Amino acid sequence: MAGKFEQNLARLGISLPATVAPAANYVPARRLGNQVYISGQVPSEAGKDKYTGKLGSDYTVEEGQAAARLCAVNILAQLKQALDGDLDRVVGVIRLGGFVNAEPDFKDHPKVINGASDLMVDVFGEAGRHARAAVGCYSLPRNVPVEVDAIFEVN
Amino acid sequence: MAGKFEQNLARLGISLPATVAPAANYVPARRLGNQVYISGQVPSEAGKDKYTGKLGSDYTVEEGQAAARLCAVNILAQLKQALDGDLDRVVGVIRLGGFVNAEPDFKDHPKVINGASDLMVDVFGEAGRHARAAVGCYSLPRNVPVEVDAIFEVN
Amino acid sequence: MAGKFEQNLARLGISLPATVAPAANYVPARRLGNQVYISGQVPSEAGKDKYTGKLGSDYTVEEGQAAARLCAVNILAQLKQALDGDLDRVVGVIRLGGFVNAEPDFKDHPKVINGASDLMVDVFGEAGRHARAAVGCYSLPRNVPVEVDAIFEVN
Ligand SMILES: [Ca+2]
Repeated sequence: MAGKFEQNLARLGISLPATVAPAANYVPARRLGNQVYISGQVPSEAGKDKYTGKLGSDYTVEEGQAAARLCAVNILAQLKQALDGDLDRVVGVIRLGGFVNAEPDFKDHPKVINGASDLMVDVFGEAGRHARAAVGCYSLPRNVPVEVDAIFEVN
Repeated sequence: MAGKFEQNLARLGISLPATVAPAANYVPARRLGNQVYISGQVPSEAGKDKYTGKLGSDYTVEEGQAAARLCAVNILAQLKQALDGDLDRVVGVIRLGGFVNAEPDFKDHPKVINGASDLMVDVFGEAGRHARAAVGCYSLPRNVPVEVDAIFEVN
Repeated sequence: MAGKFEQNLARLGISLPATVAPAANYVPARRLGNQVYISGQVPSEAGKDKYTGKLGSDYTVEEGQAAARLCAVNILAQLKQALDGDLDRVVGVIRLGGFVNAEPDFKDHPKVINGASDLMVDVFGEAGRHARAAVGCYSLPRNVPVEVDAIFEVN
């Protein structure tokens, strides 16, 4: 029987994708005691960037939120893989770092990153409430609009 | 009798403001064992942004330092709230993350973030000496000039 | 007899420089239990910035990688100092934060930060594989092209 977090994902209609390990010397997830650090995730789907462009010119806040939510889905996919498939081992979400690729007059970074924060609470409930910093960048890898990294507490 | 950190704040003439919890799915402070992660704080006062604009055009380094110091005051207000009012439970400041909203030719990010770092040592003494990264952003939430997040060690 | 990490450095022809403590209220390395947080390091050598300028205009990806590698050398120098000269006390590299000073159409931040990530694995082997976030900034201290901070697990 699926644990409560998996049930929440199912209820949300979210199927966590298969993960891809980077062809590089960093790892998607790194454990230290009861913490797991997840590397910055971008809004990719099926191996391709689903969004490329900047907030304030190419993308609206709503589109940015969808991109941030997709980053969060990818975070959870990497986390599940790191926990050998068992999301029940998650105790809580400690921190999200939200990086928004934005024009210099863009102001709504927190609204964009809410796309990721909201998913964490949708999946983990109160245990999903996390500390956060949302900031603007004038470039991101492959010109994606959002990148989000994370720290989780796990068993 | 106020503990030594509270006495330092009083001596500095700093009254920590009442805190506002964000109307969102993230929290201002998140505990993990003996660590507390404080979300990115901006230079707001009495519920309004005291500064909006960019270093290198709208603001001088000195103004940026004052803004960074106000971010640090807000960090301490959130920390005190998270510790149920007892700043004596602070063991030390582990890390500050300093984000400076700046023009592309701005170079003095460390001087700006010193406005926050100096306050931590003013309040906590040697225990306030922390690791840090100071970087430039070309946009920040609501166009504030500085955002600072923090990690503390607590009892 | 030098430990295995020191031997790796020697084999790579890397001599860790003498460290400089910042003339400020932050520290290059901050310990919390079995974690050491290293402050953001820039590509300086012998007390001067070896590189200043932006990726995508002043510097190619290859030049950025060399700058990132120099940041990593400086990280290791600060870490060794913090461990009283004994790099054998390193258990592993937990996370690198990579900040790339780049033009708005620059896309290859991960390739640049690989300059730092690759050094960590060159020195620490599998224990050097870390979580990471690579993002773009439109300014960095003194207009350096890269800044990298780090978290290590130590004994
Ligand atoms: Ca050149």
